[in-house]
Order: sequence, then structure tokens, then C-alpha cells
Amino acid sequence: MNLRKIFGLNLQRLRRERRLSQEQLAHLAGCARAYLSGAEAGRRNATLDILEALATVLEVEPADLLKDPGTRPETR
Amino acid sequence: MNLRKIFGLNLQRLRRERRLSQEQLAHLAGCARAYLSGAEAGRRNATLDILEALATVLEVEPADLLKDPGTRPETR
Repeated sequence: MNLRKIFGLNLQRLRRERRLSQEQLAHLAGCARAYLSGAEAGRRNATLDILEALATVLEVEPADLLKDPGTRPETR
Repeated sequence: MNLRKIFGLNLQRLRRERRLSQEQLAHLAGCARAYLSGAEAGRRNATLDILEALATVLEVEPADLLKDPGTRPETR
């Protein structure tokens, strides 16, 4: 799965786990809701600065946003 | 430490461990050597596509490029 898609899936999962709307997360991270919607759909070539801002709001390590949800240790 | 700096330190360490020059890594990843030099110095706001290309050449997971070398488990 390509990295944009992985990032999008992780972003959406983490946002929902924290019961945040796209509007709320976008506001807290300082980006547009439309940008966030595109990112969750795997359509954005996000930058380190955006990753850092989103990770801070979601209270995760930036690296956690890029971990492939599909790769459980025993399946690699 | 900010994410650009973390990325740069990891990139430089992984490149050196594989005995690749900046020229070689840049060529293999499809970016300019000057870009890579800036990235290693923590000056580039790299994108997911660049992270993915570099991780592929370095044979690591993209998330590994963003792990904070300073956070050993017992110090968090």
C-alpha cells in the first residue's frame, strides 16, 4: 500500500478514536478541512511539518502516522 | 527535536550505514544531491513521496525515518 494511503488510513482511524471531526482536527492542526479530507482519502503528498502538527494534536509520534496497518509482525 | 531534524539525522545515519554517498542515494531515490544535503541538515520539509522513495532505497520502513533517535523507551 502506498505511503499516502497508509497515512490517510492512520489519520482517519486516530481522529475517529479521539472523537474529533475533520473540522476540529483541521482547526487544531492549522490546516484546511478540505486538505484533511483529501489526506484521509490518500490524495495528499503531506509534508513533515503537517505530519508533525497532526501528530501533536493526535498525541502520537509522527512515525505512528506512517506505520503500515497491514503489516502485522507475523505477516511480513 | 523537530521532525525535520529527526528525519535528517536518521537519513544521514542510514545512508552512512549502507556506505552510500549523497550522490548515490540521491540518484537512486530520484532527487537532487543538493536536496538530500539540505534534508540531512534538517532544512527540508520533505513529502511522503520523497520519504517513500528514500525508504525504499535504504530498505527501511518509511516510519523508521521519523523515529526520534533521542527517545529510548526508558526515557519516555
